[in-house]
Amino acid sequence: MIIMEKGATPEQVQNVAAEIERCGLKADVSRGEFRTVIGVVGDETKVSFSLLATLPGVKEARMVETPYKLVSREYGNGEGRIIRVGDVAIGGEEPVIMAGPCAIESRQQLFRIAEGVKRAGAQILRGGVFKPRTSVHSFQGLGALGAEEAEEALFWLKEAGEHFGMPVVTEIRGERQVDLVARYVDIIQIGARNMYNQDLLVAVAKKGKPVIFKRHFGASVEEFLSFSEYIAAEGNKDIILCERGIVPVGKGKSFTRYTLDVAAVPVIQKESYLPVIVDPSHAAGRRDLIYSLSCAAIAAGASGLLIEVHYNPAEALVDAQQMINPDELGEIVEASKKISQVARTRVTR
Amino acid sequence: MIIMEKGATPEQVQNVAAEIERCGLKADVSRGEFRTVIGVVGDETKVSFSLLATLPGVKEARMVETPYKLVSREYGNGEGRIIRVGDVAIGGEEPVIMAGPCAIESRQQLFRIAEGVKRAGAQILRGGVFKPRTSVHSFQGLGALGAEEAEEALFWLKEAGEHFGMPVVTEIRGERQVDLVARYVDIIQIGARNMYNQDLLVAVAKKGKPVIFKRHFGASVEEFLSFSEYIAAEGNKDIILCERGIVPVGKGKSFTRYTLDVAAVPVIQKESYLPVIVDPSHAAGRRDLIYSLSCAAIAAGASGLLIEVHYNPAEALVDAQQMINPDELGEIVEASKKISQVARTRVTR
Amino acid sequence: MIIMEKGATPEQVQNVAAEIERCGLKADVSRGEFRTVIGVVGDETKVSFSLLATLPGVKEARMVETPYKLVSREYGNGEGRIIRVGDVAIGGEEPVIMAGPCAIESRQQLFRIAEGVKRAGAQILRGGVFKPRTSVHSFQGLGALGAEEAEEALFWLKEAGEHFGMPVVTEIRGERQVDLVARYVDIIQIGARNMYNQDLLVAVAKKGKPVIFKRHFGASVEEFLSFSEYIAAEGNKDIILCERGIVPVGKGKSFTRYTLDVAAVPVIQKESYLPVIVDPSHAAGRRDLIYSLSCAAIAAGASGLLIEVHYNPAEALVDAQQMINPDELGEIVEASKKISQVARTRVTR
Amino acid sequence: MIIMEKGATPEQVQNVAAEIERCGLKADVSRGEFRTVIGVVGDETKVSFSLLATLPGVKEARMVETPYKLVSREYGNGEGRIIRVGDVAIGGEEPVIMAGPCAIESRQQLFRIAEGVKRAGAQILRGGVFKPRTSVHSFQGLGALGAEEAEEALFWLKEAGEHFGMPVVTEIRGERQVDLVARYVDIIQIGARNMYNQDLLVAVAKKGKPVIFKRHFGASVEEFLSFSEYIAAEGNKDIILCERGIVPVGKGKSFTRYTLDVAAVPVIQKESYLPVIVDPSHAAGRRDLIYSLSCAAIAAGASGLLIEVHYNPAEALVDAQQMINPDELGEIVEASKKISQVARTRVTR
Repeated sequence: MIIMEKGATPEQVQNVAAEIERCGLKADVSRGEFRTVIGVVGDETKVSFSLLATLPGVKEARMVETPYKLVSREYGNGEGRIIRVGDVAIGGEEPVIMAGPCAIESRQQLFRIAEGVKRAGAQILRGGVFKPRTSVHSFQGLGALGAEEAEEALFWLKEAGEHFGMPVVTEIRGERQVDLVARYVDIIQIGARNMYNQDLLVAVAKKGKPVIFKRHFGASVEEFLSFSEYIAAEGNKDIILCERGIVPVGKGKSFTRYTLDVAAVPVIQKESYLPVIVDPSHAAGRRDLIYSLSCAAIAAGASGLLIEVHYNPAEALVDAQQMINPDELGEIVEASKKISQVARTRVTR
Repeated sequence: MIIMEKGATPEQVQNVAAEIERCGLKADVSRGEFRTVIGVVGDETKVSFSLLATLPGVKEARMVETPYKLVSREYGNGEGRIIRVGDVAIGGEEPVIMAGPCAIESRQQLFRIAEGVKRAGAQILRGGVFKPRTSVHSFQGLGALGAEEAEEALFWLKEAGEHFGMPVVTEIRGERQVDLVARYVDIIQIGARNMYNQDLLVAVAKKGKPVIFKRHFGASVEEFLSFSEYIAAEGNKDIILCERGIVPVGKGKSFTRYTLDVAAVPVIQKESYLPVIVDPSHAAGRRDLIYSLSCAAIAAGASGLLIEVHYNPAEALVDAQQMINPDELGEIVEASKKISQVARTRVTR
Repeated sequence: MIIMEKGATPEQVQNVAAEIERCGLKADVSRGEFRTVIGVVGDETKVSFSLLATLPGVKEARMVETPYKLVSREYGNGEGRIIRVGDVAIGGEEPVIMAGPCAIESRQQLFRIAEGVKRAGAQILRGGVFKPRTSVHSFQGLGALGAEEAEEALFWLKEAGEHFGMPVVTEIRGERQVDLVARYVDIIQIGARNMYNQDLLVAVAKKGKPVIFKRHFGASVEEFLSFSEYIAAEGNKDIILCERGIVPVGKGKSFTRYTLDVAAVPVIQKESYLPVIVDPSHAAGRRDLIYSLSCAAIAAGASGLLIEVHYNPAEALVDAQQMINPDELGEIVEASKKISQVARTRVTR
Repeated sequence: MIIMEKGATPEQVQNVAAEIERCGLKADVSRGEFRTVIGVVGDETKVSFSLLATLPGVKEARMVETPYKLVSREYGNGEGRIIRVGDVAIGGEEPVIMAGPCAIESRQQLFRIAEGVKRAGAQILRGGVFKPRTSVHSFQGLGALGAEEAEEALFWLKEAGEHFGMPVVTEIRGERQVDLVARYVDIIQIGARNMYNQDLLVAVAKKGKPVIFKRHFGASVEEFLSFSEYIAAEGNKDIILCERGIVPVGKGKSFTRYTLDVAAVPVIQKESYLPVIVDPSHAAGRRDLIYSLSCAAIAAGASGLLIEVHYNPAEALVDAQQMINPDELGEIVEASKKISQVARTRVTR
């Protein structure tokens, strides 16, 4: 990590980057309001930091020990990143609610749900086209029916987003879908099962769009951050980290599909400058806990929620048991605002 | 489970209990405001429910399938139990804050901390005398120094509680301490490591005092409730269940000692009538997360918090890294009150 | 699942398949020595099994409840599948040893290791070209240097395999590598991190080559088998399942990278007809346990081992701490043969 | 840890111990064949090692960093400990098979099983009197019926052991049972659920009899060894460590009750001089895996097995589904001997 002096010129910055590239590595230039910082992508032992420290305009040059450097709070100059998508600011004062159907089933279904979540106070619309499923025998989303159906569903999503004034997000499941999906959505989601899929991460990062990046249910926080670094190393720092539960432990029932690791929210905020949101729907796997887990997530400091909503949960083709309806979402939106205010007004830090 | 008719006489209740005992089992008579219910302790297959159903005053008699029956919400008539200790009501509208030092080190240390937590708004005073420790080479609490030191420390705790008007709680670690501890405290705590220690559970239950019963870090919710049944089967239903984190999962760091399973709070509330509190100190294992986890726990619906406090955390002989000071506790008390109000005012259920 | 009568004609089989396809599902025809069985890929509720049961040549038609059907032992007619690659039979009497470097670093390194593992008694040569890594800053294999380097490394692997008379296997990391890799290797490996990557599974399955399919470290056995079904549903049943350890549990050190779930070997053999092998290298993460874990795996009934070998482990660019040398491999080969004989000669089953 | 010179006199050893005790700590004197080593029980920072190093007869004095010192391989002089009970040597060349009923139900049942396991080749007889159970409503062993029944069952166990020439072991569940149990058995077992019960550990250790100490299913190896130190600190080093499975991880079924951590066997052997055995019965929770897991445990280097046996498993009052019969045990005994020979004859270490 090379910290430039306050008045360093673009040429000086360029010069440092060139030196790093001469060693066969990549330079990541991050211009903040107060300072410019240059990260090193690759094996840092190949660079001479003592040499870099002598270059004009360089204030400090040192090796960073964590496996995640470009997403570390230190690299981010101590401040949290605010990611703007349309009028929505993720990582700012207000919690951002992202909601919609698990799977888009038809234009009519999507629009009816979009209307409901908008009315309930959601700011971003989600809708699944390519569904990751445990069983090959289950419905895999409209995307599985063919290229045309996939594109049509994505078109509806874009249309619904524009109609109701909400940016839209969908999950990408494989590398072949990257170009198509990037044409239609504002935010690309990488699901938990793909957290370790570094080829997909790189392909998505290159599109330059904001990414919702979900923690794998078997991953430690350290691994989660290390893999988000694959996206950051492509120069894309618009990463929204999402906690969605880890594998349950123990013999006998604990009555949820996964264990929501709510402590991951403040932990990540101390380790990284990236905003963290929570998906209570997949963590709980049951409708009647979504409200409580949403409140808990916001109270823990989450910058937003990602929630599955359907006007009639019982009808949903996928994840019916964990969907809530727009009225229930409205209660969560209200509670989130109030809890967020309480949780943030704190004197001691 | 045998549900008596509304106007069933004491003789009729007695008669049913006698029939159960004739089969070699124990009867648990639970008199609610609206109905009397009789539970069966032991192997239910030895009882004829069809015979019981014909006894006078019996409205319904049926087998209960869950491994926990006496603590199930169904048995509790659907209502939550409020446990009263002195002026404090655990399980009622207000969250109850229990705080104090991890280990009592001296009378002065205890009084100074008690004064601090009282001022901060705590309602119950905690203080450890017999400390469970991972290493035999670590300080094990004043209780390890001898019988006299143990009793003296317990006396100080009682004294401090009376002086500051707070009921007191301490952890019991082994069967030999039961009589002594019960003489001095208002609530007896059974720690996570002893959750499976059924002999200790029975011995503590028999004292008839309220019990804080902590979930083992390797236990599912189902196991947790099944073991609380050992206390209930002795006729003691004043059980305060406490979630304190489960064993972390995954390779690499997740930066907390345990994983706080915040979903356990609403899950247990749906399964059982017993109140649930949360211990954020042991879950986090680090001071800077206590505030966030406390807010999350209350937002999830917890009836209270159990927090380690020291006037100067750095000085503490045990768990120094996870102690907060009274000012920080004050912020948690304030936030808890406000968040509790928001989380509870909900229309849809 | 539709079981045909012993003398059912190809036309009758075709007729049943056609009926299944008329319902919008796919038919999987499996011709065994003694009977032909037809599986249904997709939502079985869309098919009328009572109708299918009346078709000519059908002995029995019934719904299968498990999420994995095409890989279930029942579907496989109760027998284990033997997968033949060149002269090697995986799933037969003898345990099969697959060994080689974690990452191919040069032609010379590969040939020297191949010579060593051949001499030690290995039957299949492994070598990594596309390395999944936790840190973007680490060496990612020769495949990361460019298309030409990737192809060159794969060519060496094929060459070494032919030179030493061993079929070869390499791991595929992303969809874009499928065509290239399939041109050069005899067996394609899907790594643990990609177990849930259903798009990759389908793409690999379509190549028709045998697949080593590794269990994800956060997956239950049920999930593992359910995802292997994605490969089977493409008509490719040459799936070698590989256990390689699951995420460790608990606070404090257990001194291995993952927990080898050795019970998964006999468990899977009871659930499925597919052969199961074990990778002790990634489970242990340390050289000095490879011998013991290899012996344990074979004793538990594994059909083979997948082991990382280097002539000088300390020199390896990747996973240096878990590599063994060819002499150590030789000891494992010897022990495996003897233990396998003991473990298999059992009267009671 | 203080290592004495080869010719150090008893007075010199005594002198060092006295110095340690002057600092308020306990000295643990361990006389090996080749050297005498003195361990420090308690907070080592209170001792001056530089002073101790100057005392007559002292070769070396240094602080040991691990939380387990008295059970560490280093303290044990690098050699494994062989624990002799009657004619049986645990930790020696031959694997030791300990078998018998989960719960003693009657004298006749016990004798019939004892006869069976003796004939099958077992060396030690196990039988449960005080059964830890998840449900208060289940059968808790004869020990739960009263003091007289408990003593009678223990008497039968002793009697059966003498009759068939096998040392006997039973599990102790609570502190109140220590005196009684110690009067009748050769080895006292502390079950997994009591691993963290330090008061029980101390009470059992003081009896001076060999102890089978089981790993808790939520404990890391590091915690397991740290708690065994509670026994060692009482001067009792006859500790037989027992791996019996850890809590399962993941969503969905893995088809065993616990996950047998077979790597714990060689790991512990590298960390400690204590012998390690394996209990496959509780790990599997199902009869049909006992053979495979037993073979795997011995292949991994276990010094013995602890197996539940019943002449008619289906009749057993406790754990019926995981019992095997004497014939099956015989096969395990045979396989264990052969596998043990293979696994131990290894050149490279």
